[in-house]
Amino acid sequence: MLKSMVRVSIFYPSKPGSRFDVDYYLETHMPLAIGALGTAVKHVSVEIGKIGGMPDQLPPFTAICAFTCESVEAFTSAFLPHADLLQGDIANYTDIAPVIQVSEICLEQ
Amino acid sequence: MLKSMVRVSIFYPSKPGSRFDVDYYLETHMPLAIGALGTAVKHVSVEIGKIGGMPDQLPPFTAICAFTCESVEAFTSAFLPHADLLQGDIANYTDIAPVIQVSEICLEQ
Repeated sequence: MLKSMVRVSIFYPSKPGSRFDVDYYLETHMPLAIGALGTAVKHVSVEIGKIGGMPDQLPPFTAICAFTCESVEAFTSAFLPHADLLQGDIANYTDIAPVIQVSEICLEQ
Repeated sequence: MLKSMVRVSIFYPSKPGSRFDVDYYLETHMPLAIGALGTAVKHVSVEIGKIGGMPDQLPPFTAICAFTCESVEAFTSAFLPHADLLQGDIANYTDIAPVIQVSEICLEQ
């Protein structure tokens, strides 16, 4: 079996009245993050929430970003030198405090 | 530009004292779901939460399942005929009430 990969996800919980500039996030912040993290990131995705479990329900998250890496150490080593730059850019697109999760990818097909 | 895809995510929020049978989920429930949903699902991943934003922090989610589909309608059409089967199986692996989100995939690389 191949070594399992990890996923570092950044969730932006939906909050009434909050601000999230999707254009800035996709066109400025994400290229900055992808460039800074370099080859430590094997795959990246960004989702923008549309609906919740019912068609009239708000999505739990305004946005979700997921970085797939070989290990949490690989991500941390790549992230830490750029932490101030990347975290300092958050206020430019949102006032939502992000929630972080590190997961093991157990199924991917 | 290619038509954007949607992601239907099922989050199981971490709760102290809750039950989640990872083996049953990966070996029984997910094959059942993947078989039932068929070709509507273009990609599927399952993550099991390891840590939160700090090494001593619990992950926000015990598990996250993500189905990538061409549209929410494609997912719903495939899911509804099997809704009772799939939802009825949840109690076999967890007592956590899942949280659902439908997102637009805006970046994937």
